[in-house]
Amino acid sequence: MTETHKDREATATPEGTAETEDVFGVTDELVSAVEEALEAGWPAEVGKLVSELHAADKADLVESLGHDERSRLVDILGSGFDPEVLPHLDAAVREEVLDQLGPERLARLLSALDSDDAVDVFEDLETAFQHRILAALPLAYRHVLQESLTFPEDSAGRLMQREMVVIPSAWTLGETIDYMRAADDLPDDFYDLYVVDPKHHPIGKIPLSRVLRTRRPVRLTEIMETDLKAMPVTLDQEEVAHMFRQYGLVSAPVVDDSGRLAGVITVDDVVHIIEEEAEEDALKLAGLAETDLYSAMLDTARARFPWLLVNLATAILASIVIGLFAGTIEQIVALAVLMPIVASMGGNAGTQTVTVAVRAIAMKDLTESTTRRFISKELFVGAANGVLFAVLAGGIAWLWFGSPKIAAVIAAAMIVNMIVAGVCGTLIPLALERAKIDPAIASSVFLTTVTDVVGFFAFLGLAAVFLL
Amino acid sequence: MTETHKDREATATPEGTAETEDVFGVTDELVSAVEEALEAGWPAEVGKLVSELHAADKADLVESLGHDERSRLVDILGSGFDPEVLPHLDAAVREEVLDQLGPERLARLLSALDSDDAVDVFEDLETAFQHRILAALPLAYRHVLQESLTFPEDSAGRLMQREMVVIPSAWTLGETIDYMRAADDLPDDFYDLYVVDPKHHPIGKIPLSRVLRTRRPVRLTEIMETDLKAMPVTLDQEEVAHMFRQYGLVSAPVVDDSGRLAGVITVDDVVHIIEEEAEEDALKLAGLAETDLYSAMLDTARARFPWLLVNLATAILASIVIGLFAGTIEQIVALAVLMPIVASMGGNAGTQTVTVAVRAIAMKDLTESTTRRFISKELFVGAANGVLFAVLAGGIAWLWFGSPKIAAVIAAAMIVNMIVAGVCGTLIPLALERAKIDPAIASSVFLTTVTDVVGFFAFLGLAAVFLL
Repeated sequence: MTETHKDREATATPEGTAETEDVFGVTDELVSAVEEALEAGWPAEVGKLVSELHAADKADLVESLGHDERSRLVDILGSGFDPEVLPHLDAAVREEVLDQLGPERLARLLSALDSDDAVDVFEDLETAFQHRILAALPLAYRHVLQESLTFPEDSAGRLMQREMVVIPSAWTLGETIDYMRAADDLPDDFYDLYVVDPKHHPIGKIPLSRVLRTRRPVRLTEIMETDLKAMPVTLDQEEVAHMFRQYGLVSAPVVDDSGRLAGVITVDDVVHIIEEEAEEDALKLAGLAETDLYSAMLDTARARFPWLLVNLATAILASIVIGLFAGTIEQIVALAVLMPIVASMGGNAGTQTVTVAVRAIAMKDLTESTTRRFISKELFVGAANGVLFAVLAGGIAWLWFGSPKIAAVIAAAMIVNMIVAGVCGTLIPLALERAKIDPAIASSVFLTTVTDVVGFFAFLGLAAVFLL
Repeated sequence: MTETHKDREATATPEGTAETEDVFGVTDELVSAVEEALEAGWPAEVGKLVSELHAADKADLVESLGHDERSRLVDILGSGFDPEVLPHLDAAVREEVLDQLGPERLARLLSALDSDDAVDVFEDLETAFQHRILAALPLAYRHVLQESLTFPEDSAGRLMQREMVVIPSAWTLGETIDYMRAADDLPDDFYDLYVVDPKHHPIGKIPLSRVLRTRRPVRLTEIMETDLKAMPVTLDQEEVAHMFRQYGLVSAPVVDDSGRLAGVITVDDVVHIIEEEAEEDALKLAGLAETDLYSAMLDTARARFPWLLVNLATAILASIVIGLFAGTIEQIVALAVLMPIVASMGGNAGTQTVTVAVRAIAMKDLTESTTRRFISKELFVGAANGVLFAVLAGGIAWLWFGSPKIAAVIAAAMIVNMIVAGVCGTLIPLALERAKIDPAIASSVFLTTVTDVVGFFAFLGLAAVFLL
């Protein structure tokens, strides 16, 4: 981690009044300068432009480059490649870079990382590639990576780092400080000390700020916090993130099946998960598994295809409903003109409700009583806005086609569809959640199917009954 | 902040093997128990159930209750109300609770909070209410709140806390530790020391883990980090969050116009902002300003109305396009049956692109060269999936209506609309961003307008030309 520290000092802004533009490392100008230097084949110039950046900014730069330039940059940096860049890279770009680096060089880079970052990079690799890296790693490090892979994906066990400061419960604060000053295997950054009993079970944690305000003779057991919020190695990262957010944690202990301290998770890793989880919901509502900004063209097209196929199926279902009333439309063509309005309003109103519901489920905001109130509120909101938009749409239809009957039909269909949208907007995500299906990914397609089918059926059906 | 600490110890799980269910404070059972105790009028029982919870869990409990029960709970807790609960409450619920507490009691509660939390609660109040609170506050505290309000909303100045550990640059580590052991006005939790020059400009920061590993005679200037990532008081919270995420910060200094250290922002506050900002994008894409889970029914209906009105306008625009071809539809009713397919596929494909674009803009991932590649990729993806779905939709139309001509028309319209969706899905958010309009809130309505209009126009227009 010495690299990171060096980087930080190198990009110093001692005045402390940096503007936003200066604050962020990677500007369009920098990208252009690097591109030019790469094209001109000036490795020294490239090195100079890149070396002073923070690892996260280097990663941004690598992501900004095109495929060929990226490969040239990795070539130039060669063995001087900053290992801290790897965990910051987007998955698609990282794969490219790792392939180019090759297993031996990668093994060397990984062993320079904290164990959580190394696992983060390692776990995404193909099995054959993993084995070649493991063979090139020191034994202790190999063991850490192999053990990590025994924990479920996206679990606390994968997120934790082994580097931590663990102190026996019998020590005083003075002994602890002396130990820390002498030890040379402490992690680079840590925020809490963990106190363990002789069986290595965590029994307390002490924030460093408290260590610094306490006098030397005090026993650790006197000043430690005993509410540890300890997390099992198998705990899902979404739960981990929830705990950090809920309790404002900066670090938390991870324990194995027998309750022994296995590692520690720090807030900087959780920040990324909180981000990812919130981002995922937005992406899933549009049928995307993850952002594909850096994916190759064909991969992107292929990844988006299944969702569109599902939507084609639901669109055809809606068309079948319309087809039932082809005779009616033939006689009153105004129906064809107006029918998308009812379906579209239902879809939009329902999407609002679904979005609120999906976030509430993700944030664990829906207790039994909140849920009850939520459903009845959406019923009311659907009905209230339904009536308003029934009046509006009815009025417009009347003016447009001069037929109070058509106006009445569209108004009635609007009220029906908006109420259905509100109720289904809550019930669909809740039912999916109960059926252990991710509500973020499936809710919107179910919802728009319902609002399309109900919208067309109500409008055309009422028209068939009352207008012919 | 002593309350928080006490709470933590009270809910101790010393085994450290707690299951998820135990880990989270507020269960449906607890909510029911509190509701029963409130209805039965057993204040002691209520107090017992609530007092052991962490402040964040207390806030969840308060949110879970209905309006009347909530007001009864606040009544019972009376002067024993935990001030730390306030910053954790959802805005709509918080307003209710603050109204009930009244300015005098609230002034007392606020002065028990760290300044950043107090500002967070205070800034949302109505001006008259604010003045009554200020009058009841101690002078120093009043000054802090008043000054905070001079900074823009959602800026670093509003987020920062004044409580921090500031050390003159001439000191040694030993002097610093002696000072910290003796001082009684240090913040409860801190992660970095800030080193200032005689003008109170920050010139370095030292993580506590480094303080603990350094020997007493060492000068602070020898071990401090000089790359401070100092943030101006006016910096927007979105930028603040970006800096914390990008550089893995745990705390960062905030400086005033003349570069003097004004306060410090810590990661626990930023976690909520990162969450909020990511959440906001998902909500805005559905036309919601913020989650309205806890808002009153009428407020919710009213807040969602404008977005639906905009959508009504765009739906009518689409209907007008259909109306242009009413004669064509009258002759070939199959067109009315099939036309929603083209519009809906364009809308869905475009929404995928918009979602990726909006997140990329929020994450500052779109540099000039990334943008260029992104647009050409979306053009390709739109064309590739356009051809595939043209074949599918054309085939289905042929089978359904037995007309190769209708099949050719829907296929051609599908390709056109999917390409338009891909290109507009990138260009619309980028253009809005350039025009300083939030792309998250406006992109999807513009996009679906385009894909509806183009979808209907291409399909019906081609049909009018080639089928009649």
